This record gives sequence, C-alpha cells and structure tokens, in this order.
Amino acid sequence: MNTPPYVHGYDPSENQRLQDQAGTLVELLHADTRYPAGSRVLEAGCGVGAQTLTLASRSPDAHFTSIDIAAESLAEAQRRAASAGLANVEFRQADIFGLPFEPGSFDHVFVCFVLEHLARPADALAGLRGLLRPGGSLTVIEGDHGSTYFHPDSRAAHEAIACLVELQRLAGGNALIGRQLHPLLCGAGFADVRVSPRMVYVDASRPEWVEGFTRKTFTAMIEGVRANALAAGLIGAERFDEGVRDLHRTTAADGVFCYTFFKAVGIRSPGATRER
Amino acid sequence: MNTPPYVHGYDPSENQRLQDQAGTLVELLHADTRYPAGSRVLEAGCGVGAQTLTLASRSPDAHFTSIDIAAESLAEAQRRAASAGLANVEFRQADIFGLPFEPGSFDHVFVCFVLEHLARPADALAGLRGLLRPGGSLTVIEGDHGSTYFHPDSRAAHEAIACLVELQRLAGGNALIGRQLHPLLCGAGFADVRVSPRMVYVDASRPEWVEGFTRKTFTAMIEGVRANALAAGLIGAERFDEGVRDLHRTTAADGVFCYTFFKAVGIRSPGATRER
Repeated sequence: MNTPPYVHGYDPSENQRLQDQAGTLVELLHADTRYPAGSRVLEAGCGVGAQTLTLASRSPDAHFTSIDIAAESLAEAQRRAASAGLANVEFRQADIFGLPFEPGSFDHVFVCFVLEHLARPADALAGLRGLLRPGGSLTVIEGDHGSTYFHPDSRAAHEAIACLVELQRLAGGNALIGRQLHPLLCGAGFADVRVSPRMVYVDASRPEWVEGFTRKTFTAMIEGVRANALAAGLIGAERFDEGVRDLHRTTAADGVFCYTFFKAVGIRSPGATRER
Repeated sequence: MNTPPYVHGYDPSENQRLQDQAGTLVELLHADTRYPAGSRVLEAGCGVGAQTLTLASRSPDAHFTSIDIAAESLAEAQRRAASAGLANVEFRQADIFGLPFEPGSFDHVFVCFVLEHLARPADALAGLRGLLRPGGSLTVIEGDHGSTYFHPDSRAAHEAIACLVELQRLAGGNALIGRQLHPLLCGAGFADVRVSPRMVYVDASRPEWVEGFTRKTFTAMIEGVRANALAAGLIGAERFDEGVRDLHRTTAADGVFCYTFFKAVGIRSPGATRER
C-alpha cells in the first residue's frame, strides 16, 4: 500500500507529544491544582462546567460543591458531569454574594473566570474567605485582555479587543482583572498570597495553539462581540472587521500571539497569632 | 550591644533566598545557557560587558570572543572582565555587519539586547549564521516594551513608554522586537527555532523585584529618555512626568508590574540532507 509518509512518524512518544500539545491550556492552568482525598471544595461560579470536569477528574477523592447563579448553565454542567461519569460533584444553584453555607464549611475554594464578570469582586472574595476553614485555600484563575500583543502589530486589532474590554466594563465587569489578583486577594484578607502568570505564547512551531488558542479561543471570542460592539457604537463595522482580520493574520507562518492568564492562591489565616 | 533585630533572620538558607531573589533577572535570562568545555562562542555586541561576565563565568571552560563596534564600551568591558578575573574572553572591536571571522569559525553565537538597536536585524542574523559551524547554535535575548502592563493602569504611563518606543524607531531600531524573534530567526535561515518568553511579574510579595526591576531598571530607563522625548516633541513635560509618576505608583503595596523578555535558540542546519 502506498500510504503517504507522516512527517512526525507514529511512535508512541510522538503521540504523547501531540496529546500534550493539544491539552496544554488545561495543563497550563490546572496542572498544579490537586485536592487531597476527603477535602471539601467549593467551586464558585461553575457555569456550564468547563472547569468542573477537569477539577473533579483530577482530584477524584475530593468532594466538590459547584454552584452557579444560572439554572440553565447549571443543568448543562450537571449533564456534562453525568456523561463524564463524575460522582464527586454536587451541583447547587446559588448567588456568589449570598452563599447558603455555614462559615468554615470548606477546605478549599476554586474560582475560575468569574471575578472578571463581577461588579464587586473584593466583596465576593471576602464572602468566600468566610466559608473557608482556617488554613484553607482559595485558588483564582482569571485572564487579562490587556496582556494581549502580537506580530504583526495592528492598531485595528487592539481597537477590536478594546471593544470587548469596554463592553465588559459597561456590564459591570473588568476584563483586565488578571493583573490585579494580588492586591484583590490581599485586600480581601487572604494571607500568603502567591500569584503566578501563565503566559500563552504562540508561534508557527506550535500549530495546535495557533488553531486552538489564537484562532478558535481568543479571536473567536472577539468576533463574538461584533454585534454588541456595533450596537453600542464603540467602533465602526469596517474597523472592527479589519481588527479581526489582523488577529487572524497573526496565525500565519510568520505571526506570533501572546496572552497571559493569572493564577492566585491565598490562605485563610489559621488564627490571629499566626496572622501575617 | 543593642543591634536592632533583622526581620528575616540570619540563617544561611534565608541568605540564599535573598541572594536568589536579588539575582533572578540573570537567572531568568541565563539559567539555561551553558556552553561545553572547549567550545568557541561569539558574543556579538557585548557593550560594556554586562552579559559577558555572566556568560563567561557560567561557562568557564568555553572560549568567548566578545565584539562591539564601540571602542569605549569595549574598553570598559575589558576592564570589568579583568577585574572579575575572567581569562576565557577575548575582546575585539568589530561591526556586526562586517565581522572579521572565517565562515564556520564558531560553535555558538550569543546576542543579547542588540537586535533591538539595528535597522537590519535579519541581515545581522544571516551574517551570524554564516559564522557558525553546521549544527552550531544561535541564542538571542531581547525585550519587548509593548509587553508592559501594570496596575493601576495609566494612559500617561503608556504614553511615556511609547516615547521610548518611538525614539528607538527614529534611531532605526525596534523596541517591540522580542515578540518577533521566531519569524526573524526562521527568516534568517535558522532551523529548529524555539522561543521562550521570560515574563517578569512583580507584586508586593517580591520587594527585590519592585526595587530592582520596576523602579531601578524599567522606570529608570523611561525616565532616562525624558530630555530626548521632549526635544523630539513627542510629549509634553507634564504628561511625561505624570506617566513616570504613575509607573512609580505601580511599586506601591497594591501595585503590579509586568514585562516580558524573549529568548530564542536556532540551529545552523547540519546540511541539506538533514535540513527541515
């Protein structure tokens, strides 16, 4: 048979490499989060369960309570968890600003891509702190759209991105919140706050990231706000489309794209004597 | 004697921690660069020897040839190397666009903070490639001023930074070159090009970086172009000073500062048959 040769070969280590590359955004954000057996973890704002599946399957012996304010999202998250066969997650509809749990109910709290949408993220964090047992941890992951830059550079592309930042601001959120996690967690009373940036760097040597991140994650997200940006009068249609074209341009063989997520971990101080 | 207590104590591991923190920019940029015994390394554009000392002391059994176009800088580099007791560096005055070496003279080439100042960085790289033996490596480190963002955000601070970017452009350079290393090296004919971003993330939990990087490296560099920026009519004095004040503001307890360097390594292909 004349099978065309496959440039990367078929050996198992190469398959592993391809798999690693494909799964790397999850790896980049979640690799250092694992909860001990028996620990009680609150996932605040689980949405449709995108993070829940990763979280719960990586810590199969921890017990998760995943809450969201939107019943519809929650139902979808529940369906996904069921079809993934996860038995360690309990879903519950609740408002992050009025959570129906006793103080100190959880060993750990996990919050991902939630604070960016809240008008009072500091209040939400202070509330979550109260739900932790002394010594328990809070983990937060957020993006920061102001961390975006690329080659070739493009004013139009930055203007299209600025539309999303402005729409999020008008909706009461903050698309630049990633860089603010350290002061936010400190301000909410957490101790031992450690922030680590998780930079996504994409060039032509990483084709999975070009497709999976630059094109289908970031640029698709910008394209998704076109109608709202035009309706809000933030930009003209031609200029927006030029910006999106320029973002796609960064996926060419000589293009480069950069974006940074921030991950923060803080501790609820065990007590006044050990308070820092 | 009533010596005031030192908050961090004096035990050896703590001294090590302080030393590690103080030396981390060198660590961040150089940690993965070490040359084998006997290898011939060209450092192109050594300036006053800031990188030479680190390079040569980390690879004591490699032989370095460090060149620069400026006789005065070279003399200073030579003085520093001598007072550091380095015996493995030969200094030579030369132009990166007309280097006085035979093709294939070097096993490795190292270039740091040089391409950003050149009008034709691709030509310089192609010339350096010719000086490498087949299979030899080129390492490039460059910053990217467009990678700068911070909290609190400030339009004035971004405008002050843009003055430096524009001055560098007017001088024929490119202060946004870091993100372009992958296409640049590929375009100059290097194979196996790998770029890794080296992000400097600074918050109040890292006081050595607040002082050493945000204040004394980055902000000092911006302050240093004040006279030229005003003379070139790029900005008003008040606005520039407001920008610098806002950069200093990011060093407060609730401030955050981000900057990214890029490090690239490329290989001179061993030959056409193994060319990728």
